[in-house]
Parts: sequence; C-alpha cells; structure tokens
Amino acid sequence: MVNWSNMDTLGAYNALTKVAKVDLTEVMSGENGAKRVKEMTVPMGAGLNYNYASKQVNEEVLDCLAKLAEEAQLVDKYEALYNGEVVNTGEKRLVLHQLTRGQLGNDVMADGVNKREFYANEQARIAEFANKVHAGEITNAAGEKFTTVVQIGIGGSDLGPRAMYLALENWAKKNNAFKMEAKFISNVDPDDAAAVLNSIDVAHSLFVLVSKSGTTLETLTNESFVKDALKKAGLDASKHMIAVTSQTSPLAKSSDYLAAFFMDDYIGGRFSSTSSVGGAVLSLAFGPEVFADFLAGAAEEDLLSKNKDLLKNPAMLDALIGVYERNVLGYPCTTVLPYSQALSRFPAHLQQLDMESNGKSVNRFGEAINYKTGPVIFGEPGTNGQHSFYQLLHQGTDIVPLQFIGFRNNQLETDVDIQGSTSQQKLCANVAAQIVAFACGKKDDNANKNFAGNRPSSIIVGDKLTPKALGALLAHFENKIMFQGFVWNINSFDQEGVQLGKVLAKKVLAHETEGALKVYSDLLNI
Amino acid sequence: MVNWSNMDTLGAYNALTKVAKVDLTEVMSGENGAKRVKEMTVPMGAGLNYNYASKQVNEEVLDCLAKLAEEAQLVDKYEALYNGEVVNTGEKRLVLHQLTRGQLGNDVMADGVNKREFYANEQARIAEFANKVHAGEITNAAGEKFTTVVQIGIGGSDLGPRAMYLALENWAKKNNAFKMEAKFISNVDPDDAAAVLNSIDVAHSLFVLVSKSGTTLETLTNESFVKDALKKAGLDASKHMIAVTSQTSPLAKSSDYLAAFFMDDYIGGRFSSTSSVGGAVLSLAFGPEVFADFLAGAAEEDLLSKNKDLLKNPAMLDALIGVYERNVLGYPCTTVLPYSQALSRFPAHLQQLDMESNGKSVNRFGEAINYKTGPVIFGEPGTNGQHSFYQLLHQGTDIVPLQFIGFRNNQLETDVDIQGSTSQQKLCANVAAQIVAFACGKKDDNANKNFAGNRPSSIIVGDKLTPKALGALLAHFENKIMFQGFVWNINSFDQEGVQLGKVLAKKVLAHETEGALKVYSDLLNI
Repeated sequence: MVNWSNMDTLGAYNALTKVAKVDLTEVMSGENGAKRVKEMTVPMGAGLNYNYASKQVNEEVLDCLAKLAEEAQLVDKYEALYNGEVVNTGEKRLVLHQLTRGQLGNDVMADGVNKREFYANEQARIAEFANKVHAGEITNAAGEKFTTVVQIGIGGSDLGPRAMYLALENWAKKNNAFKMEAKFISNVDPDDAAAVLNSIDVAHSLFVLVSKSGTTLETLTNESFVKDALKKAGLDASKHMIAVTSQTSPLAKSSDYLAAFFMDDYIGGRFSSTSSVGGAVLSLAFGPEVFADFLAGAAEEDLLSKNKDLLKNPAMLDALIGVYERNVLGYPCTTVLPYSQALSRFPAHLQQLDMESNGKSVNRFGEAINYKTGPVIFGEPGTNGQHSFYQLLHQGTDIVPLQFIGFRNNQLETDVDIQGSTSQQKLCANVAAQIVAFACGKKDDNANKNFAGNRPSSIIVGDKLTPKALGALLAHFENKIMFQGFVWNINSFDQEGVQLGKVLAKKVLAHETEGALKVYSDLLNI
Repeated sequence: MVNWSNMDTLGAYNALTKVAKVDLTEVMSGENGAKRVKEMTVPMGAGLNYNYASKQVNEEVLDCLAKLAEEAQLVDKYEALYNGEVVNTGEKRLVLHQLTRGQLGNDVMADGVNKREFYANEQARIAEFANKVHAGEITNAAGEKFTTVVQIGIGGSDLGPRAMYLALENWAKKNNAFKMEAKFISNVDPDDAAAVLNSIDVAHSLFVLVSKSGTTLETLTNESFVKDALKKAGLDASKHMIAVTSQTSPLAKSSDYLAAFFMDDYIGGRFSSTSSVGGAVLSLAFGPEVFADFLAGAAEEDLLSKNKDLLKNPAMLDALIGVYERNVLGYPCTTVLPYSQALSRFPAHLQQLDMESNGKSVNRFGEAINYKTGPVIFGEPGTNGQHSFYQLLHQGTDIVPLQFIGFRNNQLETDVDIQGSTSQQKLCANVAAQIVAFACGKKDDNANKNFAGNRPSSIIVGDKLTPKALGALLAHFENKIMFQGFVWNINSFDQEGVQLGKVLAKKVLAHETEGALKVYSDLLNI
C-alpha cells in the first residue's frame, strides 16, 4: 500500500529546504565543471541521455532528492498506477496511457477486458486500415487514393499529434516513410477550418474526427464545417471520415464514418499521443511501422521509470530537480528549448501536458495545499529563441530554469559548410555555448555587459530525432510530470479548471447572462 | 529636460505600494461589474478598444498610476524619443521606429538626412519594386512572374514579419489583396531551410535577405544554403534575391542582389516590422497599399500615445497596470490570448518584443536596480489555449495576468450555424465567459471544483482584424513596452544579454574550448 501525503509533511522535503544552495558559477568552472558534465548524465532510452551537470545540485542535494523519492514512494505509486489503481481520484478512473505502449506489470482488467490487449488491438486495427488506405484498397468514392489526412480535434487531440507529426515529417520524407500529408483543424475560430480546407484537395482527403466523449463543442462544430464543405464539393462525407472516440460515445457506431477506432476514459487527452488519438493520424501519415517504433521508444522510457535508483531513473530525477527548483529555489517558470526545428511545436505540447496536469491548488483528496505546484511552461526552438526572449533569460530579474534538447545530426542530411563549419555544427555549438553562458556567466565592470550566471539548465542529447527517440522524449516528460504530481500529492489526471468557462460560454450562447457577463457579450456582439 | 530616475525613488510609486488591493470577485459582481465593463474602456485607434474592467484597479489605483505617469514623465520621454534624443544609451543611438509610420514631432536629422523622409522614401522604393514584381516587369531570368517570396532572417527580422503575414494572409485572400505566398527561413538548423526549399518552386521564388548588420551568422548561413539550392537548380541567385539591410552593411551595394532596401541603426530588430524589414515581404505578399494601411493603423496609436491623460492613452495605461501587477502585486508572467487563429504567432512576436526589451537588471546608466522588470510572456490563440494551459491559469498556485484580444467578425466570412450559433459567436462567447470566470470565480464546497477568481485580465476588442487594426495592435504593444521601460528606468532598446552566448559559440566552432564547454562540445560531437 502506498501513502498519499502532502509534500510539506515529508521529512525528506523539510531536510531539502535546509541544504546549502549550489553556486553554478563555482562548481561549473575549471576541471570540476568538466568532471560534472562527464559524470552527471543518465541514459533515458532510445539512445538519448539526460545530462544535469548544469543544475543546482550536488551530492548532498541529490541525496535529499533520493530520500524524497523514497519517502514519497514515487516508484511504488507508478507501479500502483500501471497495475490499475484508481489514481485519478477526482474522476475515479484508472490511468493507463503507459499501457498503450507496453505491458508494465499485472494484467489490468476493466470494462470486462484486458486493457493492454484492448489498446494493442486498436493499434492493430489502425495499422490494417492505414495499410489499406496506402495500398489503395480503401479509397474515395471515385476509387482514387487519399493523399491527405486531416485531424479534427482540440487540446490533447491536437497538440500532441500535431507536434509529433511535425517532429517526424522531414525524417519520414528522408526515410521513404512519408505516406500522406497531415493537416490539423482545432480552433472554433471558423477561419481555422476555412483556411485548412482552402489549402487541401478535399476530394482526396480523409478526415479523422477525434473526441473521446463525442461531445467536444469545437470538434463537433468543425466536423459540421467540414461536412458542409464536402457536401458543397458534391462528396459523401461518410466516405471521407473516420472517428477516434470511446466505445460509449455517440460517434462509436455511427454510420457517418468509414471506421471508428477507440480509446477509453483511462487515457487523458493530453496523454493520448500514443493511443489511437495519435495512432490514426501518425499511422496514416507515416505508416504503422513508424508509429510502432515511436511506441517502442516510449516503452523503453516507461521501463526506466520503474527503477528505484534515482540516478538511473531520468524522468524521476528530472521531476525531483524540478520540484527543488519550484519549491525550494522558488523559480516560477521553466522554458523548453529544443535545438531542432522539427520540435517547433513540442514546447506547446509540453505546455499543455505540464500546466494542465499540475496547475492545481488542491491535493488528491480535494484539500487546499500550502506550496507551489506546476510552473508556467513556455519555449521556442533554438537558435530562434536566442534572438528573441533569451535576453530576459540571461539578464532578467527572475531566474528561469532551462530544458535544452539537442541532436548531433539533423534529419534531412542536407547541409552546407560556411566559414569552416556546417549549419548542424553551428546549431550544436550554440546549445553548448548557451548552457555554459547561463551557468557560469561572465563578470564585466560594465554592469550592462555583466552576466551573473547561476541560471540552471539540463540537456537531453540524442544522435538524431527518429521515431524511437521521439517516443522516449515524449514519455520522459509524461513520466516526469506524473512523478511531480505524486510529490505534490495532487491529481495530475483531471482538469476541473476548464469547466467554469465552458458553463459560462453556454450561458452566453443561450443569452442567459446578466451583469458583467452581459456587457462583455454585448461588447463582442454575441 | 526629462529626469531619468529609478522607479523606487518616485513618491508616486511608493504611494502605489500602499493602496488597498482591489478584489475582483467583489467589484466585478452585479450591477457594479456591468458598470465597470461599460465605463473602463479606452479607444486605441483603428476602431479597437482597450477594456480594463477586469484589472485589479479602481479610482484610487488609477489615480496613483496617473501620478506615476506624470512623475516618471512618461509622455515627455516619448516626446524626447521621437524628437531624436539618444534614448538608447547603451548603444548611443536614437530610437526612431515610430518615424517609419509618421511624423510625430520635430524633423529628426541624422547621418545627414531627414530620417522621416528617409523611411518614407524606402517605403516608396519598396512599393515601386513590389508593383513591378506584381506587374511582371521584374521577373526571373526566363521572364516568368515570381509567385513566392521567402524571407531569410532571424529574431526581429523573422518573428514580427511572420506574425504580421499570418495575421493578414486570410484577410488578403478574402479581399483580393493576395499577391504572393510568403515563406520564412530563420533557424540555423539546416532542416529549416531544407524543408522550406522542398516546399516551394525555387525557379519562381524571390528571396529577401534581412540583416541590419549584414553579419548575422544564421542569416548568412541560410543565404548560402539558398544560393546553393538555386545554383543546383541552374539558376542565377543574383536574379532571385533582394537585401534589406543598413546602408553601411556589406550587403548594401553588392551585385549579389536585384535590389537593396534600407533601415538603419535607429530601428531595433524587434521594432522593425513597420520598417523595410516588414515592408519588403508584406508589400510583396499583399501589395504596398495593404502595407500602407498597416502603417496608418500604427500611426494612429502613436498619436494616442502622446496624450498626457492616462485614461485616454491606452498604451500608457496598459503599461502602468502591468507595472502595478509586476512590482506591487508580484505576478511574474503575463499571457497573451488572441481569440483569432490569424494571430497564432502574435504571442511569439510579443514574447520577443517584451522579453528582449525589458528583461534587464540594470538601469539606463548601467547601475543595478532593486526591483523586478519585464515579465515572462507566453500565449496561444483561444479557444485552443482553453484546452491546454488554462487549467493552471484558473486553478494553479500562481496568478498570471491575461491579455485577451477578440474580434466581432472573422476574416474569411465563411461560417456555419450549429446548435443555434455560428462558430464566430462561439469563439466570442468563450472569450467573454473566460474573462468573467477568471475575475469572479465560483465558490464550490468541493475544493477541486472551486474557482478562487481574482485573476485579472484586459481585452482588446475590434470589429475585424484588418491591416489597419493590426498596425494599431502592434503599435499598442510596442508603445506599452516602451512606457514600461521608462517607468523601470531601463534601456529597452539594447540586448547585451545575447552577446555572451555568441562569443562562446564562436569559441566552440574554433575548437578553442576547455572545461565544461569542451565536454559539452564533445557530447554534441562538434
């Protein structure tokens, strides 16, 4: 049995608050700094490594973090989760997204089925469907091949799959795995759907409607928008649409769709990239084998997360350093900086994953807590960010911990040599330089040119952004966020904070408003 | 003469710290709330309005802010700036971006010319060039029309122009003003340039190389990348490229370019969207008249910013409320939430504009200061953000002030009616609902479903996102950031914080590293 206790009741946490702070400008200089970079690194699956040399930790801090991991029973809680405990206490649900990519412990039976078999079966059904589309066995009414896949979904049904698609698009083009172009419609702003529809050939497009409940307002609205466009083009919408939903949703057995693929209530939207939600669009775009490799990478990370040795469990280590930064060092934000254009929307996905999971003020029993939880997450790819918001990161009045991501090789393997180095070398040189600049700073008598340093970062390094590496990268952050939720004793798997806005928006549309809400509605001409 | 004093030496600021805090859950309820929304609004040019009813201000706070504006001489400083004082003390430069869109005060002479005439003349030269391209008078070597324009630039030469292009792309398509598709290459990651080149027809593409100094590493590298591709396609690069640069740069008179258009050292990169940096690509994409309308909208806002009456100067009011939130209420971040898919990259531009300008720890004389300066800025379009990070905004442990932007009508004028309302009405209903949900919250005995409220926001409302409205919107934030820099007594126009990373990256590429930097370089195989 595990104990769910508030963080501030744990002895190890209280010990952590008393440890002397590490000065990076000191420990990262000279040979000691070189030694740290060599030693403070953990394998994280699929050939990636998590290097935390430039974090404000030393043996003493790490020792406290290890004790905190033990006292908070982080791995035991993870085990309870994947073995089918009702970890989502708010909604009284199991939390099973890791099972979409592997069997981690006991068989989990729910809704009368073995859930791992259920997820694997949906993956196989999608693979068969995608193969038939690619082979021209499933076509439009004119018997022509589909060339484009369009995902209609919002939030978890959009950000993750979109970020993963962009991450692998160029890799797939280079590796003969590019089957269909993918587009995404998410916003209820009608200009979003209209612009996507204007940019594609609808007669050769297959639409994937993604909504777990089958009731998401934006998604159903955009479905109607698309059906309208198909009708106007003289096409039968039911021959151009598939659904990804839960088996209990109104979409599940509708004849409006060519096929329906399933997830369930145990897969939170933001954790659904490795379920059918990501599976349908990614298998159609790149083929089922690529999607399977992506899952294999995630599964590797999931296994590492079972390790009780903190220094061999990169997601747990990352999580605990983040808690130390948030609660003891008092940093309110974290920025995600992938030095890879392919990861341009990965920070936006992590923004949802982290802020929606851990932006909570009550514990898992619904009691108010007295410490900070999830930080604000933001980021853009490097080197672009260097020419944008890095000024504040280097010289602003708040310290923002940095999560770098870098790869030794680019995806398209096209490059030029300018002034003695390739673009890829310049990209990598910049990330190495930034880490050291942030950590060590540089004294200057002119205060305007002075860099105080002591700005902590870690870097995830890989050889190349492949499907497998991407899976490991995604699972690392999913598991990191899960572990942080465990430490903070919050429920990372519900999102009650999104409800009030929905309720009030319905009132506005029903013209049942008064006071400020009525005047705002008038102002916007609703 | 104006006095440049640190904020914490000003009596009005110290008075502000002592004013009782406003409780939004109280003042925004009932008829009082309705009255606030009706009254607390300021016209901001081009038909936009800035509504600050849901900010934590009342008469007493506003009175203090007005006194602070006066004591800090904000409008006088703005006057000094546009009349040609050396406001950029770090680099000893004038700050003249407002002159790119109008004559605000005295003639400003620099480098032996009247600067307003210089900027207007460059705008006219670009207009003439763009008209010739559109008319087929300037063509590729085969005499065929250019169909695509590709901007090569990074930071200020990328984020602003890209955000403005995306903001107007659909409007232009609807209003018969779409002349050429635009693409952007920015990152030194070679996969960025390669992917863009793979997506276009290079034989009919015109490239705009943008670098003020003519020495930006990323931009020169990407230029070589593009030239290589043109050469491989059997094309003469010099017939496919124009330059936007300063007259003193090595690019200014090179025969490598069809034409060169100029800005100067008095236009900071992040403030350059209304100069030739935005002018070339936007005039080519949408025609010079659209660019002129965009400037006219910005000019309207610039005029409003001259008003010493705080309640008639929306940029100054927004600035001071932001300072109150940052320094007195202690909020570390601000989020920008445009309910308009067209503004998808506007938050990324504001992130640069704000964080690079005001992420400083020394005053304009190079002395350390003892108060917080620029906040972290992030954001995504609504309603997408609602399904992502809003959970933390509603129920997280930190309060994040919110900047909403909404328009009564969409750009493409295509819409569908579902369940009794259009998509546009749903979009607007959501923004109205969110403001009230954040401000007023909702009590619930179940703490997990409780909304504390008291989360401040403002909204900028317009009829439609037109070129003129976009210009006013952009100038509003440029001027807001300028006023905040004045209050904090910092230099918002330099960026010394980006230098150290550049220096270290050069060392890495020259293999002149040791210690931690050497090991990180090895790790990344440089």
